[in-house]
Amino acid sequence: MNRQNAIKVNAERLWARHMELARIGALGETGSCRLSLSDEDAEARDLFAGWCRAAGLTLHSDRAGNMFAVRPGRDPKRSIVAAGSHLDTQPHGGRFDGISGVLAALEVVEALNDASVETEAPLAVVNWTNEEGVRFAPGLLGSNWYIGAIDDAVLDDIRASDGARFADEVERIGWRGATRPEDLPLDSFFELHIEQGPILEAAAVQVGVVTSVQGLCWLDVKVTGMDGHAGTTPLDGRQDALLAAAAMLLRINEAGRAEGDEARVSVGRFIPETDGPSTIVGALDFVVDIRHPDEAVLKRLESRCFALCDETARSYHCRAEASRRVAIPPRKFDADCIAAVQGAADDLGYSNQQIASGALHDASNIAARVPTTMIFVPCRDGISHNVAEYATPEDLSAGCDVLLHAMLSRAGRV
Amino acid sequence: MNRQNAIKVNAERLWARHMELARIGALGETGSCRLSLSDEDAEARDLFAGWCRAAGLTLHSDRAGNMFAVRPGRDPKRSIVAAGSHLDTQPHGGRFDGISGVLAALEVVEALNDASVETEAPLAVVNWTNEEGVRFAPGLLGSNWYIGAIDDAVLDDIRASDGARFADEVERIGWRGATRPEDLPLDSFFELHIEQGPILEAAAVQVGVVTSVQGLCWLDVKVTGMDGHAGTTPLDGRQDALLAAAAMLLRINEAGRAEGDEARVSVGRFIPETDGPSTIVGALDFVVDIRHPDEAVLKRLESRCFALCDETARSYHCRAEASRRVAIPPRKFDADCIAAVQGAADDLGYSNQQIASGALHDASNIAARVPTTMIFVPCRDGISHNVAEYATPEDLSAGCDVLLHAMLSRAGRV
Repeated sequence: MNRQNAIKVNAERLWARHMELARIGALGETGSCRLSLSDEDAEARDLFAGWCRAAGLTLHSDRAGNMFAVRPGRDPKRSIVAAGSHLDTQPHGGRFDGISGVLAALEVVEALNDASVETEAPLAVVNWTNEEGVRFAPGLLGSNWYIGAIDDAVLDDIRASDGARFADEVERIGWRGATRPEDLPLDSFFELHIEQGPILEAAAVQVGVVTSVQGLCWLDVKVTGMDGHAGTTPLDGRQDALLAAAAMLLRINEAGRAEGDEARVSVGRFIPETDGPSTIVGALDFVVDIRHPDEAVLKRLESRCFALCDETARSYHCRAEASRRVAIPPRKFDADCIAAVQGAADDLGYSNQQIASGALHDASNIAARVPTTMIFVPCRDGISHNVAEYATPEDLSAGCDVLLHAMLSRAGRV
Repeated sequence: MNRQNAIKVNAERLWARHMELARIGALGETGSCRLSLSDEDAEARDLFAGWCRAAGLTLHSDRAGNMFAVRPGRDPKRSIVAAGSHLDTQPHGGRFDGISGVLAALEVVEALNDASVETEAPLAVVNWTNEEGVRFAPGLLGSNWYIGAIDDAVLDDIRASDGARFADEVERIGWRGATRPEDLPLDSFFELHIEQGPILEAAAVQVGVVTSVQGLCWLDVKVTGMDGHAGTTPLDGRQDALLAAAAMLLRINEAGRAEGDEARVSVGRFIPETDGPSTIVGALDFVVDIRHPDEAVLKRLESRCFALCDETARSYHCRAEASRRVAIPPRKFDADCIAAVQGAADDLGYSNQQIASGALHDASNIAARVPTTMIFVPCRDGISHNVAEYATPEDLSAGCDVLLHAMLSRAGRV
């Protein structure tokens, strides 16, 4: 690639489409609420579909409502080089999480159209259904069904938080299709996404070359002591579950720090069973969220948390029961796809660094079946799932340029 | 007093009356639910009133529904030596909290009747209305009105959690009377009560000579950090309000321990604002409950808590706002009344120790106007406000013997 003559995406068009989509289900100045398969999601899909058709793409959809907008290649026998993400949002979501990945993939096609560039392999722009998992659980639903992790009957009968049936809602908004995964075989899948963390911004780097998705495990911990009267019970005679849990939280954090920069340990869903201001808390529950890109470290952290919850509870005259609720192993992305992204970023001269994804994405699922990787775009203050979510037009177009050249290298320029 | 010939209460009658009252509003084998001014409270009052009348007592009641069952003294000009507590219970309460103090006072009168002993001063058995503060707030309501802390109009208009008006409910159950506090001037007030803590049981002591009620202050603490994604936010970049609060809890506990055995520090009503298992908690609230019998120590602990919440929050890149919600100064009981209880316990040969009350009681209010003290009876495992609450018949009658002789020394035997 000659850096000066390289095809570039249209940064203004990419940004303008972000802003136009954000008007659907708008919350205030900068927020969006488009829960999966809602009227707002339907409206966003129709707008996107219109852009795809105008760009000469052919639309397909499947049982899960996943959308595939295909641009033919010179060689119709070749598998498709695909890119995309999701258009649904959190209830108080922003304008970039998911959306950027779909619009960047579309912008790749538009830029190739503008430059009259044909590829050997077909290309596709993908919108996966219900990534966020807010209205329908679990999240990553469309991609989970796509890789066969959820079968047809289970998919169809999933109920929304508002009672609606998944299959009925896909039908209602007009995107229930008959395309099966094998009908559109994929060569590779690329997902551009905002980082949802502060690492690239802090390093002043424009492009994150994503090498893996961290593994995750969730531990349910129940701490049991004994309720007591805050006035009458001496400090030494207490079985204070809240105090025991406080000590656990500090030790869990220390255990995480001991494993270095890539480790993540967090405690959430922290729910004391008593809420009187003068009652010593006798029982509570919390969830430990542990993440690491290396499975051995993940397992070591999990074991350490089990042990320290037990030890700490005993030292506070309480007991702890901990169990694993969820475990998702780390996912290493495809080396060739990573190399395509790394090469594009280097060739284009964008500052970049390799990074593990701390969040799950549809790409984590697709990687089980198809060579896959991701491109991260810095986002302000690492904020996402929030109306304040922001990425600059410059960083989005840089990521999109990298996506274009990674796809082009994979698909082959005619 | 000659220990061998000393008048003793009838332990069996005292126990039997506990069991009979507990059948009203019974919960399972050992629990009671008699919320203030409910039908169950009315039934308990009527049973108690019947016992009083049968013992020759004259019943009076006031605007708050407080009941005074009076036994004349030889000298009608002398002020009344009174004892009592409350008959209302917690929603999942036991058979002893409050009830024991009322029944012990009645048993004192019965024992004097049985022994044909007349006193110089009149005696009274008192049932204070709505000590528990469950159906009507605040608690200690009858005694608060009695000492003038709540005026007539405010009292009448207090609404129950079920919407009922206080004055209407007192009227409805038949105990709204016209007696004013000045109509029945009190010489002194004694309240026997289960300890509601583990100290006497642990020391294997039968009688607690209560010297004071601990002062109390409640601090509202709000910790603010920033919500974040558990997977994408490095441990060093976090503003984890839950982790900051955990560190505060341990330091608050240390601060309490540094003030010795009588200090109590507890954290309750601990409420994180986010409950997602993979969201770093950005904000939460809790209440610190601090108690000590010495006001100077109480204030020192309060200042220490303010300072350490602030320091700790900063060290976790969060901020803490703490404010005092409630402050009740320690109440020292009357030296002469304490001496009467101490003398009776010693003379009767019951093992005893002086103790500060960790809980508030009607006696704390009455002490503002009338020489007052309390007698504590050990309770199993320190449990109260619970259907498992238990005191032995032996300990109850020992406490009641002490009450009898303390009252007798105060009232004067003819």
